[in-house]
Amino acid sequence: MQKYIVIMAGGVGSRFWPRSRKRMPKQLLNIFGKNSMIRDTVERVLPVADYENILIVTNKVQKALIEEQIPELPAENIIAEPRGRNTAPCINLAAEIISKRSGDSVMITLPADHLINDEKKFLEDLEKATDFAENNDALLTFGIKPEYPNTGYGYIKILSGSENDGVWQVDRFVEKPDIETAKGYLKSGDYLWNSGMFVWRVSVILDEIKKHLPELYNDMNIICEDDRFYTTLSDIFERITPVSIDYGIMEKSDKVWLVPGDFGWSDVGSWETAYQLSSKDINGNAIHGNTLTIDTKNSYVHSDKVFTAVIGMNETIVINTGDAVLVCPRDKSQKVKEIVEYLEKNNINGLI
Amino acid sequence: MQKYIVIMAGGVGSRFWPRSRKRMPKQLLNIFGKNSMIRDTVERVLPVADYENILIVTNKVQKALIEEQIPELPAENIIAEPRGRNTAPCINLAAEIISKRSGDSVMITLPADHLINDEKKFLEDLEKATDFAENNDALLTFGIKPEYPNTGYGYIKILSGSENDGVWQVDRFVEKPDIETAKGYLKSGDYLWNSGMFVWRVSVILDEIKKHLPELYNDMNIICEDDRFYTTLSDIFERITPVSIDYGIMEKSDKVWLVPGDFGWSDVGSWETAYQLSSKDINGNAIHGNTLTIDTKNSYVHSDKVFTAVIGMNETIVINTGDAVLVCPRDKSQKVKEIVEYLEKNNINGLI
Repeated sequence: MQKYIVIMAGGVGSRFWPRSRKRMPKQLLNIFGKNSMIRDTVERVLPVADYENILIVTNKVQKALIEEQIPELPAENIIAEPRGRNTAPCINLAAEIISKRSGDSVMITLPADHLINDEKKFLEDLEKATDFAENNDALLTFGIKPEYPNTGYGYIKILSGSENDGVWQVDRFVEKPDIETAKGYLKSGDYLWNSGMFVWRVSVILDEIKKHLPELYNDMNIICEDDRFYTTLSDIFERITPVSIDYGIMEKSDKVWLVPGDFGWSDVGSWETAYQLSSKDINGNAIHGNTLTIDTKNSYVHSDKVFTAVIGMNETIVINTGDAVLVCPRDKSQKVKEIVEYLEKNNINGLI
Repeated sequence: MQKYIVIMAGGVGSRFWPRSRKRMPKQLLNIFGKNSMIRDTVERVLPVADYENILIVTNKVQKALIEEQIPELPAENIIAEPRGRNTAPCINLAAEIISKRSGDSVMITLPADHLINDEKKFLEDLEKATDFAENNDALLTFGIKPEYPNTGYGYIKILSGSENDGVWQVDRFVEKPDIETAKGYLKSGDYLWNSGMFVWRVSVILDEIKKHLPELYNDMNIICEDDRFYTTLSDIFERITPVSIDYGIMEKSDKVWLVPGDFGWSDVGSWETAYQLSSKDINGNAIHGNTLTIDTKNSYVHSDKVFTAVIGMNETIVINTGDAVLVCPRDKSQKVKEIVEYLEKNNINGLI
């Protein structure tokens, strides 16, 4: 049975403004090391699937840049959704394409913008999940063992005592908790971070979509990779209702299982996370580009080109892209999206 | 007797980087309101002297910009020193020119980069000083009544009981004090801030220069506003020793008097001072240009053109000139000159 990787790359990532833009979302940025996160995501799964079996589902404005960053991918494997309709249509579309190309196959769905430190462990866990998916009618999700009471993630509760070869049955999905609830989750040991990574056979996910989202299933079922592909897709995406795979399928299906992952996973959600995950100098600063820091500590300073001087600051984020500058304390980096909202409201389109 | 204004405008003002540059020192910047400080300085004294009687002594790189900012000034009244030799040569040169143009005259010497809030009071005090200077062989200086124990200014101690028509004899000049000493000065009432503003007759200052700096006097005495003016000046400035008017004359002469000034004087010495003297919005922010501030308080944000977003900061200075950005806490703004030192050391001449 063939294995396919589906990388979901439709996000905008406005919390990485001013570096992230509609045409340059965070997954296409080089924030760590030499590659973008999407290129890292592709390279990471090459031991599992050839480029021919890697699909990226994105949008029109990002397609060209993805082709540029990953020239090894066949052009027809980078699919541009006509408009964003959340994750269920995206996954349905990819499953339909795989099914029509190769019949029943294992489908591994990954977000494009996550960081994974321990690739070896990740591939081991992935193998465990694909084996399980190949042999069971199961929708598998990766649950990340929480390291601290994070209030920014959704959690998945496993069913005590349901373990089967290192795979657990899922009791339920829970929303982002408040800090006290998150502390309780951490203590209980039954709650894992929802990573948004899934493994299943296309026949299984398509059956579940048919059952829980029959209209979507019927719409997607007609697509065919011929000359009319994008025209048909446009019509379909125009009328379908946005729905997430979590809400539309995972929270309703009785076939949901979980593989606990412990491979140094991070959702790179803000400049604060980028700071945490960056290597620092002896002053605790993560500094890139044309910058000068004096008496500055525990700060993240990035300047593409323009000279940026930071004196006497502590725990501060300074990002200079030449056409825009951001200054904010590290613990306020979630608020960066308010700037993007302001720019959108005021039609300052050159900066979003 | 004619009255002349001499404006000393040779400074670089590196503490206003990145807005201040060698070609654009702080006195030429529009930091407050609609005019540069040098233009304000000129307009302020127009009730006392016509443009023909206003001289500006500057350097070669600033001359063109001063001509542009003050087109009403006769070109020959903007004198470019071949090189900076501190204030005594500058004053000697101006006194010599005035003396040769108009014979003995009252000469009012002002720095180009100070802020004066109460122009009416300033003009009243100036009139008092010019009257005294016209009728006495005196070197008058303006002493500013201290409002707080400033450690960044030099002080002038007056002689108790020496008052004569609101003018006091000077006991001595003292260097920038430490905070305890400054507190003592404030308490005693006999110490005033040294404003660097002087009033005298040219015959009196030239006699005192002849007495205390005879070599300088002899050198300057030969200058003449003919075709060879700048050639002669070059030769003279090449060989003369730099010396300040305070050290070279004021601290040695027995003709020094002081007019206490109380006209809202400020030496605009740093971005912190600029913040203090700016008008603020309800969040205590002084904001200029293409900026967005969210949850930001008591900060100074200036951006010439490039969009600059500041979130969640407090008491911070952010200056964006498009080719350079500065971020620093308000209480560290004295350190800005360290950036200029870095740029000079590394020959990054485009930014200094």
